[in-house]
Amino acid sequence: MDQTNEQATGQGEGTGRRGRGAAARRASRAGGGPSPSLPFITRKIKEYEVLDEEGLALIERNADKVLEEIGIEFRDDAEALELWRNAGADVRGERVHFPPGLCRELLKTAPSKFTWHARNPERSCEIGGKATVFAPVYGPPFVRDLNGERRYATIEDFRNFVKLAYMAPSMHSSGGTVCEPVDIPVNKRHLDMVYSHIKYSDKPFMGSVTAPERAEDSIAMAKIVFGDEFVENNCVMLNLINANSPMVFDETMLGAAKVYARHNQASVISPFILSGAMSPVTVAGTLTQILAEVLAGAAFTQLIRKGAPVLFGTFAASISMQSGAPTFGTPEPSLVSYGAAQLARRLGLPFRTGGSLCASKVPDAQAAHESANTLNMTLLAGTNFVLHAAGWLEGGLVASYEKFMIDQDQLGMMQKMAEGVDLSVEAQALDAIREVGPGSHYLGCAHTQANFQTAFYRSALADNNSFEQWEVEGAKRIEDRANALCKSWLDQYEAPALDPAIDEALLAYIKSRKDSMPDAFT
Amino acid sequence: MDQTNEQATGQGEGTGRRGRGAAARRASRAGGGPSPSLPFITRKIKEYEVLDEEGLALIERNADKVLEEIGIEFRDDAEALELWRNAGADVRGERVHFPPGLCRELLKTAPSKFTWHARNPERSCEIGGKATVFAPVYGPPFVRDLNGERRYATIEDFRNFVKLAYMAPSMHSSGGTVCEPVDIPVNKRHLDMVYSHIKYSDKPFMGSVTAPERAEDSIAMAKIVFGDEFVENNCVMLNLINANSPMVFDETMLGAAKVYARHNQASVISPFILSGAMSPVTVAGTLTQILAEVLAGAAFTQLIRKGAPVLFGTFAASISMQSGAPTFGTPEPSLVSYGAAQLARRLGLPFRTGGSLCASKVPDAQAAHESANTLNMTLLAGTNFVLHAAGWLEGGLVASYEKFMIDQDQLGMMQKMAEGVDLSVEAQALDAIREVGPGSHYLGCAHTQANFQTAFYRSALADNNSFEQWEVEGAKRIEDRANALCKSWLDQYEAPALDPAIDEALLAYIKSRKDSMPDAFT
Repeated sequence: MDQTNEQATGQGEGTGRRGRGAAARRASRAGGGPSPSLPFITRKIKEYEVLDEEGLALIERNADKVLEEIGIEFRDDAEALELWRNAGADVRGERVHFPPGLCRELLKTAPSKFTWHARNPERSCEIGGKATVFAPVYGPPFVRDLNGERRYATIEDFRNFVKLAYMAPSMHSSGGTVCEPVDIPVNKRHLDMVYSHIKYSDKPFMGSVTAPERAEDSIAMAKIVFGDEFVENNCVMLNLINANSPMVFDETMLGAAKVYARHNQASVISPFILSGAMSPVTVAGTLTQILAEVLAGAAFTQLIRKGAPVLFGTFAASISMQSGAPTFGTPEPSLVSYGAAQLARRLGLPFRTGGSLCASKVPDAQAAHESANTLNMTLLAGTNFVLHAAGWLEGGLVASYEKFMIDQDQLGMMQKMAEGVDLSVEAQALDAIREVGPGSHYLGCAHTQANFQTAFYRSALADNNSFEQWEVEGAKRIEDRANALCKSWLDQYEAPALDPAIDEALLAYIKSRKDSMPDAFT
Repeated sequence: MDQTNEQATGQGEGTGRRGRGAAARRASRAGGGPSPSLPFITRKIKEYEVLDEEGLALIERNADKVLEEIGIEFRDDAEALELWRNAGADVRGERVHFPPGLCRELLKTAPSKFTWHARNPERSCEIGGKATVFAPVYGPPFVRDLNGERRYATIEDFRNFVKLAYMAPSMHSSGGTVCEPVDIPVNKRHLDMVYSHIKYSDKPFMGSVTAPERAEDSIAMAKIVFGDEFVENNCVMLNLINANSPMVFDETMLGAAKVYARHNQASVISPFILSGAMSPVTVAGTLTQILAEVLAGAAFTQLIRKGAPVLFGTFAASISMQSGAPTFGTPEPSLVSYGAAQLARRLGLPFRTGGSLCASKVPDAQAAHESANTLNMTLLAGTNFVLHAAGWLEGGLVASYEKFMIDQDQLGMMQKMAEGVDLSVEAQALDAIREVGPGSHYLGCAHTQANFQTAFYRSALADNNSFEQWEVEGAKRIEDRANALCKSWLDQYEAPALDPAIDEALLAYIKSRKDSMPDAFT
């Protein structure tokens, strides 16, 4: 069942849009500014599959066995256990055993597709079906800044990454915890984070999940922007609910999931898997566990509120069997994600995985290979929501400005790739082939003149010049160019318009909430 | 029709194999040595497709129109034109117009699959079907060496790249012109190149195509190794025959193709496309031209000798519409290659495309993103022969030692990826999930203990350590690690055994040929 895609709030979006367009044009004239933002991706290309019907059915049978025989723990949450008991599950202590088919039956009320509303309706995204939505890195406590320093992240960094996500053409969301602003007390920083998303971007954003009361704050602030009724009936926040794999949901995550589901906001139920540590060392075993965890976690949201949007999430990496360190961009997690995407489609749930993941400490060729392997898979798997699409470095410990710029350029390539092959008469270009003929070239022919502006994806960062030209220009590596482009974007940034009354109300809400709590730093 | 896969020569291979295994074990003990070589890839994963039946039929119809209405030029080759006339084509000057179906009819005698024999039969590769074979970069006049210098390539570099290809586990061939040894006269260097492939590697290699007499020399040297009769009845060399796109085959390429086809050696008919210059700026137009060129060029090999192996080749890149410079790893050439792979399968010909292509001048994140985008596509397209799989830098002008090492590591990942998902009872790991249960971990469980050695692809170059550990170890980038590993491999290199009588005969042949010609440097 699909939720309706209605107008969000009407507050200032038109203005915001005009303001943004003008800013983009100015930026473009000034040089180094980004292109205008693109809508979310509607994939015209096929999904790539690694499992056949038999393999999928096998994984599903095995997951059902896990759910029934082993069960999933819902820790420290009497309400959750009571809900499961009432739904017909066999609850022993904190362990819930699920009769065959129970979770699938409950998930029939979950939407296969819904709209993730932005305060600027032009930036609203579909989640599900053929849609793919990119969001920035989530969670790093550190940044690698534009001076090459690795240090703890601050709220200033947070704002900068929101601004960059707002400006990046193929970034469709400003994300959630783009970095941890550790200069703000841990019990208050979510207020500044949600505010930054609203103030410095008009793309859709994510809510806080680190405590139920922080989820409530996120809802309250969203209601100031979108209105009470709109929020209760539409999704305006995606929220990252990690399973504590293997086979556990903890109190924090359950607390946040309950708040969001109750208010009709989307939960991204994501087993966090470092294969070999949190799941078996095999792809098939890992897929089995992921499916079991998602079935239990996603079905739980429907016990809270039937119809609440929920995503089949998968965070898949491996560990080095020598050192135990996480590894990224390797073949096995790609196979896991491809398989999980297929399982999600069979279940009728939107799917989240992938991004631009890497273990490298710097944006070098290791970072790029690992990120590209992950990102190519992410697109071809048919992923609907892509967290960590740009900026991720060092296993997610670091948000890198330079890597953000390099990654967002690659997202543009994926967006173009998703358009597939144009087979129109113009694209067939038979007249061009006739005009040019053997032994000539197409540089000046009429068809090229008519189509070259849109023919190829243009990277703002790749250097395609001759070696000599490249040397004259300082023999720069791509991270040097990314650094310069990033500075230029931040210099040219202009905030989207925000109704001053809303801004005031948000600031007042934040002040009153902050005043009500002592600072906490752990 | 498939050629038989027989024993190649019996000369010294057993010894070679034992010698190699011992060397690999020694190297492995010493640290930094490569793993043992892997056989060519037999893909268990599906091909990714970007065109449906309707789209494919459209491109095929359009290509037939190009062949009939516009035609293809076979330049400066009276024999070729005469052969086409006799086959029923309409020849006007050097322009050949093909009646509908003629090329496809001629191609019915071309094998869909054949064996590319190595002097060590364990290294022989299948070409076609589900097989994928990796070969190094081809053609660069420059190298970027282990001192970071960019300079003209020498025969010493050539030997080094052959040695590295021989040692790299997932490199299945030592390739052809791994770099241009410009310190040797242009009319003689092919002799040293072919000799280096035979002497320093026992993997299959490619012949010289720069003049018919150099192709003849390649054949003569192959016959010294494999025997006359074996060469005439089996493929021991793949040979790169570029179309001079658009729609021209020149005298040099036709001359080489004729020599090889006559001796039953494989031609890789490859339109060399920088889309926007050598073909229309659109994917569909480019595919149409590629198919027309390959149909004409491949069919021509069958006019020379029915049953001679021939590949559907595609070298696809775009140009920057701003500067005219070639670009790599962008979406449009990927779509072209995916489509071309489908057209090749429909035609029943083995397919060549892709590799690790990039425009970057250094092995940075640009190089890696472009290479990874190309390489992931190459594997998923179902490419049978992958030239430029490692070492390519700067649009193919430079062979880079460091990038070779980084790329060959990625080839290992692709080889693992191609194995797909193991669904055996052991891989399903239900017992492991039962043993571990909720809230624990899999690090020490019986299933992990039993499977961890082979569970995940192990990169010899990726750094997955903690930031602190990485800093202590010198904060190295991947190219620094690649540089060190490359030196270690070259230090540890041991040549595969070669029958001294064959070696002597080869050297005598080379001497007599060199003595017969004055040096030429252009």
